[in-house]
Amino acid sequence: MTESHATTAYGRSVTEACRRLGYSKTVETLLTLAALEIKVEIPIVRDNGELAIFTGYRVQHQNARGPCKGGLRYHPQVDIDDVRELASLMTMKTALAGIPLGGGKGGIACNPHEMSQRELETLTRKFVKRIHREIGPNSDIMAPDVGTNAQTMGWIHSEYSAIYGHSPAAVTGKPLALGGSLGRDKATGHGIGIVVTEYARHRNTSLQGTTAVIQGFGNVGFHAAQALTALGVKVVAISDSRSAVRRDAGVDLAALSAQ
Amino acid sequence: MTESHATTAYGRSVTEACRRLGYSKTVETLLTLAALEIKVEIPIVRDNGELAIFTGYRVQHQNARGPCKGGLRYHPQVDIDDVRELASLMTMKTALAGIPLGGGKGGIACNPHEMSQRELETLTRKFVKRIHREIGPNSDIMAPDVGTNAQTMGWIHSEYSAIYGHSPAAVTGKPLALGGSLGRDKATGHGIGIVVTEYARHRNTSLQGTTAVIQGFGNVGFHAAQALTALGVKVVAISDSRSAVRRDAGVDLAALSAQ
Amino acid sequence: MTESHATTAYGRSVTEACRRLGYSKTVETLLTLAALEIKVEIPIVRDNGELAIFTGYRVQHQNARGPCKGGLRYHPQVDIDDVRELASLMTMKTALAGIPLGGGKGGIACNPHEMSQRELETLTRKFVKRIHREIGPNSDIMAPDVGTNAQTMGWIHSEYSAIYGHSPAAVTGKPLALGGSLGRDKATGHGIGIVVTEYARHRNTSLQGTTAVIQGFGNVGFHAAQALTALGVKVVAISDSRSAVRRDAGVDLAALSAQ
Amino acid sequence: MTESHATTAYGRSVTEACRRLGYSKTVETLLTLAALEIKVEIPIVRDNGELAIFTGYRVQHQNARGPCKGGLRYHPQVDIDDVRELASLMTMKTALAGIPLGGGKGGIACNPHEMSQRELETLTRKFVKRIHREIGPNSDIMAPDVGTNAQTMGWIHSEYSAIYGHSPAAVTGKPLALGGSLGRDKATGHGIGIVVTEYARHRNTSLQGTTAVIQGFGNVGFHAAQALTALGVKVVAISDSRSAVRRDAGVDLAALSAQ
Amino acid sequence: MTESHATTAYGRSVTEACRRLGYSKTVETLLTLAALEIKVEIPIVRDNGELAIFTGYRVQHQNARGPCKGGLRYHPQVDIDDVRELASLMTMKTALAGIPLGGGKGGIACNPHEMSQRELETLTRKFVKRIHREIGPNSDIMAPDVGTNAQTMGWIHSEYSAIYGHSPAAVTGKPLALGGSLGRDKATGHGIGIVVTEYARHRNTSLQGTTAVIQGFGNVGFHAAQALTALGVKVVAISDSRSAVRRDAGVDLAALSAQ
Amino acid sequence: MTESHATTAYGRSVTEACRRLGYSKTVETLLTLAALEIKVEIPIVRDNGELAIFTGYRVQHQNARGPCKGGLRYHPQVDIDDVRELASLMTMKTALAGIPLGGGKGGIACNPHEMSQRELETLTRKFVKRIHREIGPNSDIMAPDVGTNAQTMGWIHSEYSAIYGHSPAAVTGKPLALGGSLGRDKATGHGIGIVVTEYARHRNTSLQGTTAVIQGFGNVGFHAAQALTALGVKVVAISDSRSAVRRDAGVDLAALSAQ
Repeated sequence: MTESHATTAYGRSVTEACRRLGYSKTVETLLTLAALEIKVEIPIVRDNGELAIFTGYRVQHQNARGPCKGGLRYHPQVDIDDVRELASLMTMKTALAGIPLGGGKGGIACNPHEMSQRELETLTRKFVKRIHREIGPNSDIMAPDVGTNAQTMGWIHSEYSAIYGHSPAAVTGKPLALGGSLGRDKATGHGIGIVVTEYARHRNTSLQGTTAVIQGFGNVGFHAAQALTALGVKVVAISDSRSAVRRDAGVDLAALSAQ
Repeated sequence: MTESHATTAYGRSVTEACRRLGYSKTVETLLTLAALEIKVEIPIVRDNGELAIFTGYRVQHQNARGPCKGGLRYHPQVDIDDVRELASLMTMKTALAGIPLGGGKGGIACNPHEMSQRELETLTRKFVKRIHREIGPNSDIMAPDVGTNAQTMGWIHSEYSAIYGHSPAAVTGKPLALGGSLGRDKATGHGIGIVVTEYARHRNTSLQGTTAVIQGFGNVGFHAAQALTALGVKVVAISDSRSAVRRDAGVDLAALSAQ
Repeated sequence: MTESHATTAYGRSVTEACRRLGYSKTVETLLTLAALEIKVEIPIVRDNGELAIFTGYRVQHQNARGPCKGGLRYHPQVDIDDVRELASLMTMKTALAGIPLGGGKGGIACNPHEMSQRELETLTRKFVKRIHREIGPNSDIMAPDVGTNAQTMGWIHSEYSAIYGHSPAAVTGKPLALGGSLGRDKATGHGIGIVVTEYARHRNTSLQGTTAVIQGFGNVGFHAAQALTALGVKVVAISDSRSAVRRDAGVDLAALSAQ
Repeated sequence: MTESHATTAYGRSVTEACRRLGYSKTVETLLTLAALEIKVEIPIVRDNGELAIFTGYRVQHQNARGPCKGGLRYHPQVDIDDVRELASLMTMKTALAGIPLGGGKGGIACNPHEMSQRELETLTRKFVKRIHREIGPNSDIMAPDVGTNAQTMGWIHSEYSAIYGHSPAAVTGKPLALGGSLGRDKATGHGIGIVVTEYARHRNTSLQGTTAVIQGFGNVGFHAAQALTALGVKVVAISDSRSAVRRDAGVDLAALSAQ
Repeated sequence: MTESHATTAYGRSVTEACRRLGYSKTVETLLTLAALEIKVEIPIVRDNGELAIFTGYRVQHQNARGPCKGGLRYHPQVDIDDVRELASLMTMKTALAGIPLGGGKGGIACNPHEMSQRELETLTRKFVKRIHREIGPNSDIMAPDVGTNAQTMGWIHSEYSAIYGHSPAAVTGKPLALGGSLGRDKATGHGIGIVVTEYARHRNTSLQGTTAVIQGFGNVGFHAAQALTALGVKVVAISDSRSAVRRDAGVDLAALSAQ
Repeated sequence: MTESHATTAYGRSVTEACRRLGYSKTVETLLTLAALEIKVEIPIVRDNGELAIFTGYRVQHQNARGPCKGGLRYHPQVDIDDVRELASLMTMKTALAGIPLGGGKGGIACNPHEMSQRELETLTRKFVKRIHREIGPNSDIMAPDVGTNAQTMGWIHSEYSAIYGHSPAAVTGKPLALGGSLGRDKATGHGIGIVVTEYARHRNTSLQGTTAVIQGFGNVGFHAAQALTALGVKVVAISDSRSAVRRDAGVDLAALSAQ
C-alpha cells in the first residue's frame, strides 16, 4: 500500500479540478477535509490470555448527498491518513455513479491472517460497540474491504441489530442469508471486463489478440481474468503477494484457481 | 503553549509510574492511548459572508470510572495531540480527586478574539450538532477552558437540550441562571492558595516574607494573586500575553485589575 | 374563573415592570408569548357508547431556567388564553421562588364531575399518548390543578412510564405510593397561614382579633381555615360553589368538614 | 389570501357531505377539528443585531391514513385558522388521491421578501429545533408552499438529519441533490393542463379556439400557461402581484418569462 | 387444539431432519428452543366493573434471517408451549418461502367471543404497552390468527404508532385503510386451491370427478370451498364448530354462506 | 435449593394474608402472578470450541412502587418457577423496607464453577444484549446473587453502558471502582446480627450463653458468624456444600476462613 501516493493523487485531482472549475480555495479545502473522523482504542483478550490493543478508525468524508458508504479494512498499516484518503475517493465514486450516498471508510490496524476467528469476532463486535451511534443505514454504511469479508459484515450486522433491531441496511457485502446481494463476489472483476470493453469501443479498436497481465489473484483478480478471457484477451501472467506465473499461450485459470 | 513538552511530561510520568509499579507495557499503552478521538470539520459563514472552515476535536481518554469530564478550549494552536494530552491529564485529575468521572478534553482551532459573538455561537452550536451523540451527562461533560467561558457552555447547553430535553448536567461552568455553581470563577485561583498553604505546612515553613511572580492575569491569575496576598505572600511581578509589571513593594492588584 | 382579568393582570404587570426596568418592547413581548403551545383533539368512547371529543391544551411558557412546571386542569371553560396566562404566571412563580424550573400549564375542556372514573382515565391516558414527546422530567412536569388530583397524576405517570420506564419525576402531586410528597394536600392552605403571618410582621400588627372570610372550601380552603384559626384569626364565613355559611362567633370547621 | 372564505368553503363542504351521507354531528366535528396544533415563538437575532420574534405553526389535521403531509408557508398573514384550514384540505387531497398520507400544514408569520438568506436559514432551523419531535417521515412531512422553496426544505432536512441521521423522507420538494423529484417545478402547472383536458373530454367539447387568462405568473402560472398553449388554448392575459399584460393575439410567454 | 401433538410433530421433524443431515445435537437444540419468550400479566377492568387478569405471550423463535413474523391468537387454551411450537413452525414457513423473516407467534389466553369490543381493545392496547420494546418492523411483526382480525391489528398499529410514529410495517393483516393488502381474506383458502392443483399435476392425475369434505367454514374454509369448486372438485360435506352439512350432489356454498 | 417449598411458602403467605385482610381472589392472583417474564436462549462458543446453549430468565414481579430490583443467579437448577418465586419475595422485601422499588429476579441455568472467566463474561454480556430494552435504572435493576458477584455486575454495567451511556444505577453490588457501596460484602451477614439482637430484645431475653449453628460458609455465613460471635453467641457448628465442622467450645472462625 502506498497511501501517501494515493493521498497525493486525490489531492492533486481536487486541486486541479478546482483550478479548472474556478472554485475557491475554501471549496478545495472542504473537498479534502473529512466531515468526521473517529479513532478508537480497542483492547481485547487474545486467545493466549494476553491483553492486546488495536486502533480502529472510521472517517465520514462527506454526507451531503446521503449517508456515508465505504469499506472497513483490516491491515497492519491502516492509519488515519490512509482511511481519510480512501473515504474521500468514496465520495467521488458515489457521486460519479450518481447514487444518493456519501463517502466513508474505516479500518483497524491489525493483521487478520494472524488472528483466530474468535479474536476477529471479538475485535469487530467491540469496534461496533464503540462507534454504533455514528453508523447505520441513515448515517454510515460499511462494506467488506481488504482483510474483511461477508463474515465480518455479519458480525457488524449482528452487533448493530442487537441494539437497534434487525438492520440489514447497516452493511453491504453481507452473507446471502442476511440479505446480501447475489453476484457481489464477482462484481468488481466483472466490472473490469465492462470497463475494458467500453475503452475498446471508445478507442474504436478490437480486443482480439490483445494480452493482459494481472497483479493479484484474489477475489477481484480471478474474476477479472475470467472476464478478460471471455472478451478474447489472453491473460499471459498473474502474480499475487507470494508468487507469479507466466505462460505466453495463456495462463490456465482453472488449474491456477484449483491450487 | 508547549504541547509537546506537556505530552512528554505525561508520557514520562506514566512510563515511570508503570516501571515503579511493575505494570506491563500493555497497561502503559492503555494509559497513554485515548478510548475515543473525534475530529470534525465545521464550516460556518462568517459575518463578512465568506465561508470559513474550523476543525474541532473531542477526546475521551478514559471512561472506566465514570463519564468523561474536561474542558473545551478555543485557540488557534489546538491540535489532536494537544487535546489527547490534556484529556489524559483529566483522567489522572479526576482519579486523584476521587470523583466518579473519567477524563476528556476538546477544542476548536480558532482565534476567539477575532470572532464576533454571532460567529462563536454559530461555531459552538454546529460543533454540538456534529458530536451530540457522543457527549452528555452519561458520556462526556464539557467545561470552560482557554478561550471559552460560561456563555460558551450556555450555547452548548441550549443546543444539547433542544435535542434531549433540559440537560444542565451536560456541562459544568455554565451561567448561574442555568444552574452553574457559585464561586466557580475564583475556584482555580483559590485552589492555588490552598496548595501553597499545604506545601508550606508540609515543609514546615512560613509564607511570611515570601514573594511570588505570576504568569498570566486572567481569571486564574487574578484570583491566585489575591489568594497569595491574603496568605502573606508578596506578589512582585505579573505578566500576561501582552505586557508585564514588576514592583518589588508588591503589585497593586486592584489598580491592575481596573485596567 | 375570570381568565380575561387574569390575563390583563399579568399583561399589565409585565408592561409595568418592563417600563420601570427600561426593558425593550421585544423583551416585553418575549415575556408574554409562550415558547410552545399544543392543542389536541381527544376522541373517547363514553360509557353510553357514544363518541365524544374533548380538546386538550398544554402551554410551555418559558423553559430558560429549567423544565416547565405547572398544573393540568379539567374544567368546561378551559381555553388556550386561559392556559397561556396561567403558564405565564408559573414562569413568574418558579422564578420568584428561585427554583430551577420554568412555567407551564395545561388543561382539558371537560366537566370532570359529570364523567366516570373510567372516562377520566381514558381521557387522561389518551392525552398523554398524544403529547408524550413534549413532556417529562426534562421538559415539562405536570401537577394537579382544578378538577384533577393525585389519581390523575397517577394515570399520567403510568402512561408515561409505560413508554419511558418508571418516571416519578414526570409529575408532582402524585399518590404517596408512587413517591408523592407528604403534606402536599395541606401545603397551599398552610402557605396562606405563612403569608398572613409574614404580612402581619411586615405591617407590625397583630392577628389577634382579626376575622377572615374564605371563598372555596376544597383542599385549599379547608387547610387555610385551619391555619388561620391556629394563628388566632376568627373565620366568620365560608362559601363554596353551592352554598355559604356565616357565623360571627367563628365557623365550626370540624362540623363543616364532616358534612 | 382570504382564509375565512377558504375556511367557510371547507366547513360548508364537510357539513354538506355529512348531511348527504347521514353522518353524525360528532363525525362532522372530527373532520373539522385538527388532531394536533402546535404554535411556537421563535426569537432570532436579525442582521441588524436586533432581536425579533416570529410565530410558527404546524397543524396535523388527520393521521388516520398515514403520516401527515403538507406545505410550510412563510407569509405575514399566516395564522392558526389559516393553517388549520389548509391542513384540513390536505387530508381531503391525500385521501382523494388515494395515497397513504394524512393532512398537515404549517407556517411562520414573516415576510420572506424582507429577510436575508441568513435570517431565513436561522428562522427555519430554529423552527425545526422546536418541533422536531413531532415531525419526520413517520409523523409529518413538510413541503414548499407560499414563500418557501427547495432551499427551505434543504435547511429543514439538514437540521432534522443532524439529530436523526440522513432523512430525505422528512421533506418533499427538496433540492435534486438531496433526492428531490425531477419535474416537481412544473408539476402543478402541468396538472392544470391535465385537468383542463379531462374537463373538455368530460364536456365533450374542444379546446381549439378557447382563450385563457392567468392570475399569477410564478412557478405555477408560467407552467400552466405553457401547458394550456400546448393544448391549443390561447392565453390572452396574465397578471401577477405587481402588473398585468393583455394581448388578444396571445401573450408571448417566452418574452414575458425573460423579464 | 392438540398442541402437544403439534409440538411432537415439529420436534419429530427437527430430530429426523438433523439425523438425515448429520447435524449435531446442539444444532437440533438450537432449532427447537426459542430465542426469546415473553409472558405478561394484563389486568383490565371488565364492562361489569370487575378486575380481570389475562395472560399474554409472545415468542420469538428465530430472527437469524430477519425480523420475527407470526400471528397473535386469542383463545382460552393458549399457553407457552402452544405459542413456542407455532413460532417454530413460522421459522420453517418463512425460511421455506424464502422471505427474509424469522418466526414468531403470540397469544392471549382469553375467550374473545365472550368479550365486548371495548374489552378486547383495552386488552390489546395494554398488551402492546407491555411488550412494545420487543416488537415492531425491525424486530417482530404480528398478524391476525385464531380469534383476532384486522381490527385487532388496527389497535396494535394505533398503540404502537402513538409511541414510535406511523408504523404500518409493524403488523400485517391490517385494515385496508391502514395499508392492508387486498385479497388477504381469501389468500389462505385460495392457496389451498393452488396446492391441490400442484399436487394433481405432480401425481399426473385429474381433479375432475373428485370430491372434498371441509372442516371449518370460516374465512379459510369458505374460500377453500370456492377454490376447490372452481377446480372441478365437488365439495360434499362441510362442518364447523357447531354443526355440519352433507349433500352428495355438492353443498350449495352461496346458500350456506348466506346463513 | 427447595424452590417448590419456597413457592408454597410465598403462595401460602399471600393466600393467608388476603384471607385475613378480606381481599378478593383477583387481588390474590395479582400478587402471585408476575407482570413480566422473559426467557432467552443464549448460545456461546465454549473455550473448547464447542457451541453450548444456556437458558436465561428475568422476571419482573411488580413495578407498581418503582423499578424492579433483584438478584441475578447462576446455578444449574435455575428455572422459571424458581425465579418468579424469588421475584415475588423481592416485591415484598422492598415494600416492607419502604423503599420505592418493586421486585424482580433473574437467573441463568449454568454451573459457574465449571466455566472460565471468559465464558462467564461472554454469557453475561450476551444475556444483557438480549434483554437490554427491559432493564436499567428506570425499569429493572440487577444485583449479585448465588453464583454471581461484583465482577458479574461490572460486566452487565459495561455492556449496558456501551448502549445507553455510563449507567451505574443499572446494577447494585458493583465493584467499588464503578461506584459500588462500601460494606456491601458484609451487609447481609451483619444484618443477621441486627435481626437476632432485635429478636432478643423483643423476647426480653439475653443472647449470652446461646449457641448457633450456621449452614453455608460463603459471604453471608462468614460475616453472620462474626456478627453472632460479637454478640456473645457461641457458633458451635458450620457446614457448607462439601463439608462440616463441629466444635462445642466454639468454631475458630479465623482458622476456618483461612482454609
